[in-house]
Amino acid sequence: QALLGQLGQMILSGGIDVVDCSGVLGPETPLLKLPPELAKDTPPIKIHRISEYDQDGPFWAWNWLELGEHSGTHFDAPHHWITGKDYSDGYTDTLDVQRLIAPVNVLDFSKECAENPDFLLTIDHVKAWEATHGEIKAGEWVVLRSDWDRFADDEAKFLNADATGPHTPGPTAEVIDYLIAKGIVGWGSQCIGTDAGQAGGMNPPFPAHNLLHKNNRFGLASLANLDKLPAKGAILIAAPLKIKNGTGSPIRALALVPK
Amino acid sequence: QALLGQLGQMILSGGIDVVDCSGVLGPETPLLKLPPELAKDTPPIKIHRISEYDQDGPFWAWNWLELGEHSGTHFDAPHHWITGKDYSDGYTDTLDVQRLIAPVNVLDFSKECAENPDFLLTIDHVKAWEATHGEIKAGEWVVLRSDWDRFADDEAKFLNADATGPHTPGPTAEVIDYLIAKGIVGWGSQCIGTDAGQAGGMNPPFPAHNLLHKNNRFGLASLANLDKLPAKGAILIAAPLKIKNGTGSPIRALALVPK
Ligand SMILES: Nc1ccccc1C(=O)C(=O)O
Ligand SMILES: Nc1ccccc1C(=O)C(=O)O
Repeated sequence: QALLGQLGQMILSGGIDVVDCSGVLGPETPLLKLPPELAKDTPPIKIHRISEYDQDGPFWAWNWLELGEHSGTHFDAPHHWITGKDYSDGYTDTLDVQRLIAPVNVLDFSKECAENPDFLLTIDHVKAWEATHGEIKAGEWVVLRSDWDRFADDEAKFLNADATGPHTPGPTAEVIDYLIAKGIVGWGSQCIGTDAGQAGGMNPPFPAHNLLHKNNRFGLASLANLDKLPAKGAILIAAPLKIKNGTGSPIRALALVPK
Repeated sequence: QALLGQLGQMILSGGIDVVDCSGVLGPETPLLKLPPELAKDTPPIKIHRISEYDQDGPFWAWNWLELGEHSGTHFDAPHHWITGKDYSDGYTDTLDVQRLIAPVNVLDFSKECAENPDFLLTIDHVKAWEATHGEIKAGEWVVLRSDWDRFADDEAKFLNADATGPHTPGPTAEVIDYLIAKGIVGWGSQCIGTDAGQAGGMNPPFPAHNLLHKNNRFGLASLANLDKLPAKGAILIAAPLKIKNGTGSPIRALALVPK
């Protein structure tokens, strides 16, 4: 088939760019902080050296990690949320990989998010975006471009929490329902999770998590470099590790972008 | 650009198959065993529950992992080997992601490997394969189809070790040099590592590791489902997690395959 041959040639020749949509994974990577009275947190990321060309391995260097499934740039599988617990194909090792590579709609509300860290995306915002860029279609990814990755090297700024909790942008419940009705495969954010910082107080609580996973859709969080993607026309590859009964996974998200 | 639009449509319609080239990652995943007097091993994979819709997290389930960089289906970055230690772009977080998505040459020697677990791929084997299927070109992946993934649920069979060490197929030093001269981006195996079981006694020891990484090329190990790929015509996506100073990473390897 000619299409994949052309694709290979275009990537090799640089006619298509492969954009890295992941942030660095290490001890400095920002992690979610939940209210301690409510829940346990994911533990800190640790990298332990096994050897580095030394008495523990003369010719090789390697490490092992303590790593949460929902750490850094990561994927949320349906089993992550109670609403998605009964999907047999809702785990990282049982989901359908055909769904993971799809056209991506990049909704740029970075200006609004810079002005208001509690910015919430509504159906009206999406309809206006579709009027300009074209309809969002079944099977596609939808990501909110907030340019929040510019804070990813500073956890305090990334989480942006005060006495009233974290203040980061995200979707309304209504917009997630609207996108699910369109048939999207999943929703992605550049913030710590798929939901807004204040989403614990919404109805339902954490609506992106609740509604996406109830409907066997996927979530993506801490995405990077969305400013390098067009509104439409790129392909997003977002594949979790095949963790046994996994609820999610750090990912190396990549986008194919026309030049 | 029309090409990526067509690609998206073909994946969504099932005209292109996304094949999962990874095995399951969990406590049963086979791991490399090195001679204890020589070196430290990568630790066992452990999955620790944080919560599962309970007092530790009422609406969500998630886990954290103890996970070696070179565990399960995984990627070897140049810094993994002493010969590749000085490449600034030789770590998982510094390598060029443009190189990770490329056409894949699937060299089917599964019959030979079934007959002889110590099967070694030579330059003559590759030249004969090229005469049938076409030349291997710069920037492409090359993988040895041994169908060794049929043992991946049984570590003893997968490692196939006896008093004389592990017996699994792999490349000769000469064939790796030949492929590097062709300009390949990397070499992949369905066995525990990129080298043959008996490679510690070759010259140089572990020639795939030694020579690939000396030349800033990548390795892939424990690949699955290569029997579902054509000899030529598929695109392999093999992207490590963006681990800070990482020497490698478990991966969700995926192939785009024409129907
Ligand atoms: N919002 C949450 C609440 C509880 C657990 C995890 C999350 C996430 O955002 C996540 O998936 O990273
Ligand atoms: N052969 C080896 C020797 C030492 C360390 C690692 C390896 C691997 O195969 C690996 O990368 O999994």
